Amino acid sequence: MSDALLSRAERLDADDQLAKIRERFALEAPSDQAAGDAGVYLDGNSLGALPHGVAARLQDVVEREWGRLRIRSWDESGWWTAPERVGDRIAPLIGAAPGQVVVGDSTSVNVFKALVGAVRMAPQDRDEVLVDAATFPTDGYIAASAARMTGRTVRPVRAVDMAAEIGPRTAVALVNHVDYRTGRLHDLPGTTAAAHAAGALVVWDLCHSAGALPVRLDADGVDLAVGCTYKYLNGGPGAPAYLYIRRELQPRFDSPLPGWNSHTDPFGMRPDYEPADGAPRGRVGTPEILSMLALEAALEAWDGVAIEEVRRKSLALSDFFLECVAALVPDGLVESITPAEHALRGSQVSLRCERAGEVMAALIERGVVGDYRRPDVLRFGFTPLYTRYVDALRAARTLADVLR
Amino acid sequence: MSDALLSRAERLDADDQLAKIRERFALEAPSDQAAGDAGVYLDGNSLGALPHGVAARLQDVVEREWGRLRIRSWDESGWWTAPERVGDRIAPLIGAAPGQVVVGDSTSVNVFKALVGAVRMAPQDRDEVLVDAATFPTDGYIAASAARMTGRTVRPVRAVDMAAEIGPRTAVALVNHVDYRTGRLHDLPGTTAAAHAAGALVVWDLCHSAGALPVRLDADGVDLAVGCTYKYLNGGPGAPAYLYIRRELQPRFDSPLPGWNSHTDPFGMRPDYEPADGAPRGRVGTPEILSMLALEAALEAWDGVAIEEVRRKSLALSDFFLECVAALVPDGLVESITPAEHALRGSQVSLRCERAGEVMAALIERGVVGDYRRPDVLRFGFTPLYTRYVDALRAARTLADVLR
Repeated sequence: MSDALLSRAERLDADDQLAKIRERFALEAPSDQAAGDAGVYLDGNSLGALPHGVAARLQDVVEREWGRLRIRSWDESGWWTAPERVGDRIAPLIGAAPGQVVVGDSTSVNVFKALVGAVRMAPQDRDEVLVDAATFPTDGYIAASAARMTGRTVRPVRAVDMAAEIGPRTAVALVNHVDYRTGRLHDLPGTTAAAHAAGALVVWDLCHSAGALPVRLDADGVDLAVGCTYKYLNGGPGAPAYLYIRRELQPRFDSPLPGWNSHTDPFGMRPDYEPADGAPRGRVGTPEILSMLALEAALEAWDGVAIEEVRRKSLALSDFFLECVAALVPDGLVESITPAEHALRGSQVSLRCERAGEVMAALIERGVVGDYRRPDVLRFGFTPLYTRYVDALRAARTLADVLR
Repeated sequence: MSDALLSRAERLDADDQLAKIRERFALEAPSDQAAGDAGVYLDGNSLGALPHGVAARLQDVVEREWGRLRIRSWDESGWWTAPERVGDRIAPLIGAAPGQVVVGDSTSVNVFKALVGAVRMAPQDRDEVLVDAATFPTDGYIAASAARMTGRTVRPVRAVDMAAEIGPRTAVALVNHVDYRTGRLHDLPGTTAAAHAAGALVVWDLCHSAGALPVRLDADGVDLAVGCTYKYLNGGPGAPAYLYIRRELQPRFDSPLPGWNSHTDPFGMRPDYEPADGAPRGRVGTPEILSMLALEAALEAWDGVAIEEVRRKSLALSDFFLECVAALVPDGLVESITPAEHALRGSQVSLRCERAGEVMAALIERGVVGDYRRPDVLRFGFTPLYTRYVDALRAARTLADVLR
């Protein structure tokens, strides 16, 4: 059985259109692991692997741009315009035309900008902010603050019910495109259309979808979106997040964080705030350039990669992993909480099992790195740019070994 | 005359207690400048020079911590606790005991946290936020937003009048310790005491003082403070800012940006927000680790450096520069807008002159890098860790050449 699965995995890898992209990443083992065994990294949905080229680029940024050119680099090395330039590099991955995505600050800070901005653009008699009830927590905490500071109330609603729950009192709905815990993919076009039909705005959190599957912000008429860049986009630890503001809404975007970087004339040092046009309106203060330019270098791993092919492989990988788990893990020990249906699945598989924390520790000990979410969930992220079918098989086989 | 000044400069450099600290910095010329002439960098009050050691540290962070350990580094490489650890490294430079400074986000974002937090701690009948009328603009823009979102109004007041203007309606005053334009040092102890006597809080912006002169936040009873790390602290372009929250106020600090990183149990992924105790309460989202750890490495340049000695040299350097300017530049061509009195001077000298933009361009052309602030100000920053007296002389001499 296992031999048949191995043959299948090897054949799938041999036929994989994206197989060569794996060479763009550093996937060596930690120095405390057995030489030659780099293990299996299935936590790219939390921190993406390192793309080759980042280290050399960062060295140049530090030694030449900062160390020698110093202040001149703000202009001459393109530091000042990096937030928009890197935003435009991300834009095609999320279905956005240029000029609508700006990079900087954390996801949490961008959720605050987006929600307050949305409330201010919504009809002013609308008193509620709907939040995905199973949201990654920071979105909920920030939504509560945004509502408190704009005199609205937050109402948690299941993401699957969001379209039905958006009503005449709704100013804005904040929804995760993919649930971080279950890996469930939510209905972006349908929920967006429902929000608009009800006269509300919608903010999408793309943290667990961008870079894993096609997102069509422009085509689907999304108002605002935020996302991180350190998961499927491989931008590095804590790499800056991004904010998408639909072009038509930009002139009305009234930021709660109107820093000098979003001023129409930042070096005019004018006492009154006058916001810039376009994507820069989403900026705040001076961006963290080293992290920003590491992200820019990391995004080169996407050169020539079609997101549709990423999606195809992502589903095939997670299908194959589920098949291996079903074949190798004794019945009843794990239960997938990730939808089997492709249209409802992101790019991770979440398995519920007893003593999940200990199980994940044992997996990591054996070189299979996923993560654990309390109280009982094992998460395995499938990052099609560098995950192979043999990796999925090994993960399932190791899981079976640990559980037996 | 000039020969006498040169002898003086050389003697001052020979006697300089901090002279050897200069070796900790990369001060080579840009590759487009004449070999052997690294010029004079007097813009460290905008972007500090590169400390040696940052490049190697960052290479290790990228290649080993991110590239090999990947997700494990959040624990094993100390990424998760970096905001507090780096904060505690900055703390002695600003007179703060450990546990009160947290690093992350931009200065602008931290001004927002500090001001909203302060308004929420002030007596609730107080309806005004005072802002230094000559403030660096972002503080003013963000103060306006903080006031708008908390139902207060902003009143601009000259920093020198702040102590007298703080009154029974004042919730909080936001003051720049050193004026970015004139280099004037404001009265931190006196203004803080006046605020407290009036029942108000005070937020200090230390961007242009931290690392240039002694700051005594604890001793002077400051409530909250923010500052950047890319000027006198040499943390790198856009290096993350810091937030000081006085220990006694931490339990009452109610952040407008309650992200998951400031939760008491961040990995509990709990739907309700419960803030962490202590400095982590000032965190928001995932910090930009590459920029954060570059800053940490950069701070090693401060090992064994006494801030009192930095201050002594800073004043001596700017005194000497002003003396050279007086001796070399024909009368009436420039006017210093930086106070001559030591107690009122930060670590820069600002000279007003005609066609200042063109003059600065000509200075930079000749290897003397300061900066220009519209409409008519030349700024020269004196960073005692790596600026020499001969540099001050050369800057004055070049200025005289350009103006003649």
